[in-house]
Amino acid sequence: MKEVFLVMDMGGTQIKIALIHGNGKIIQVKSLNSRAEMTMENRLEALVPDINELISTDYNLKGIGIAFPGIIDFDKGQILSKYVKYPQAHITDIPGWAKKHWDVPLLIENDARAALVGEWQHGSGKNCDNLVMVTLGTGMGSAVLINAELLRGKNYLAGNLGGHMSIDFEGDFCNCGNKGCVETAGSTWALKRNLEKIPNYKSSSLAQGETLNFLEVFTKASQGDEVAEKLKLKSLEAWAAAIINLLHAFDPEKLILGGGVMQSKEEIIPFLEKRVGERSWLSEAGVEIVAAEQSKYAGLLWVVLLARETYSLNGDFE
Amino acid sequence: MKEVFLVMDMGGTQIKIALIHGNGKIIQVKSLNSRAEMTMENRLEALVPDINELISTDYNLKGIGIAFPGIIDFDKGQILSKYVKYPQAHITDIPGWAKKHWDVPLLIENDARAALVGEWQHGSGKNCDNLVMVTLGTGMGSAVLINAELLRGKNYLAGNLGGHMSIDFEGDFCNCGNKGCVETAGSTWALKRNLEKIPNYKSSSLAQGETLNFLEVFTKASQGDEVAEKLKLKSLEAWAAAIINLLHAFDPEKLILGGGVMQSKEEIIPFLEKRVGERSWLSEAGVEIVAAEQSKYAGLLWVVLLARETYSLNGDFE
Repeated sequence: MKEVFLVMDMGGTQIKIALIHGNGKIIQVKSLNSRAEMTMENRLEALVPDINELISTDYNLKGIGIAFPGIIDFDKGQILSKYVKYPQAHITDIPGWAKKHWDVPLLIENDARAALVGEWQHGSGKNCDNLVMVTLGTGMGSAVLINAELLRGKNYLAGNLGGHMSIDFEGDFCNCGNKGCVETAGSTWALKRNLEKIPNYKSSSLAQGETLNFLEVFTKASQGDEVAEKLKLKSLEAWAAAIINLLHAFDPEKLILGGGVMQSKEEIIPFLEKRVGERSWLSEAGVEIVAAEQSKYAGLLWVVLLARETYSLNGDFE
Repeated sequence: MKEVFLVMDMGGTQIKIALIHGNGKIIQVKSLNSRAEMTMENRLEALVPDINELISTDYNLKGIGIAFPGIIDFDKGQILSKYVKYPQAHITDIPGWAKKHWDVPLLIENDARAALVGEWQHGSGKNCDNLVMVTLGTGMGSAVLINAELLRGKNYLAGNLGGHMSIDFEGDFCNCGNKGCVETAGSTWALKRNLEKIPNYKSSSLAQGETLNFLEVFTKASQGDEVAEKLKLKSLEAWAAAIINLLHAFDPEKLILGGGVMQSKEEIIPFLEKRVGERSWLSEAGVEIVAAEQSKYAGLLWVVLLARETYSLNGDFE
């Protein structure tokens, strides 16, 4: 019977569940709705039949890994921060759930750290042991690898708060309580607020929709919409400032960019490279800025490596 | 004959030179003028008699250490950045100078990293292997220790550029080419520029002097000068934003604050603690913010440890 891991990437809108062979190959994936109306505990219980269906009787489950968008105590398997999409996640006994149903160890890690490990092992970070990962999407996530070790810090915050770095210290308050966070200037959730600060914004077709996303902003900008161009530029400048700060802070070999916004990577990466050239202290050869290669699956592939390290699960997984 | 190290802390206005016993005890210190009119090569040559006088015939010199305010390739012993106070430092063969005159190994390190090691071994960082050091003075320096290792990064920049972190991405250009650096908002060199942005600044006695420093600003503020109060607050807010960013980035056990500005530490530390409590993601017990204890000598004491690590110089130094 093949030995497998089950991995879940719990996002704000969907949950991806995959069965992964010890060699890193994905056997099967399914996507489910996040269902923010349920508590974390109920959501996990409701997932049990889906998980059992995946495992069926063909596989021997060795462990479960969860990538989660929040601050995670990796050592205790506990979510430390609150997240509106998974109510009560911070008071849910997740290792207990895995033990009760399958009697297997559970690993839970911040989703940006999980994606970083996936890219490091299987994507654009291969053969580099010093990496910074930035994911641009609804918010901005980040994670750091130093000398082949994930940087976690005393309170498991280290490297994870790229999106809540202040780049506008006299600016707007962020919903996190800090002032001028990157996310207040350049995230999907702040697009509407920033649009409405642009003079004559009502002249733009962007003002007509209820919701806004970056693909729309980039598309309208390329069609000559001046308001969209301004909004795009503000976000690009915010990301550039944040990324230069991260490069100065950690000085990695590569910075890997992932997340939904990277649909526009042909525009984003050259802009960032230009600003890094103009404004950072790095020489041209000082760092590589690359797109994530495993954008779909990096958040799933991480678990094999971490499971091996943590539980010394080697044996016949190769 | 006692075996000793010679250490120099090369600052913008003075050079401190010390003879240090292998046990970390300072035997003798002298201070000399930096003399920015001389090239680095000539300055080093002119120091030779001073150094020989310190060593005299009583000591056996085992190595020389230099703490220098710039980006340093520690492995090659080379200064990578330019610094107006030591012209041509980046093209000077410093290990060659030490070899020629005394035939001893030379270590050179960024001054904030040197101060961090000094505080870690002999000051307020004792028994903590995860530290961030910030020095507030003419500029703002920083350095990071992770799991008992100095963080240096691919290009030796890592953790050193706290003062050139952008906290105002749409703000003023810094003299380094980046935009909205901490130093543009909160450093001695930017005080005059920031003073002149305050409405009615001419009503303040601060406007009368040619130069400005923080002690003056804090003193006038405490005497009820409203312009000084605003200028003080802007700097405090800039430092708080920068320090929260550093805490989020590295999540250390302690953050150590040093530098000349810490003459006003009774006002600065409580302000920073308040802002960290209000705005950071850290719980109250999440981090300690402490003043440097070895403000005078941390930049000298570092060399013994680094020399031991680098050259395995143990023997009779204890």
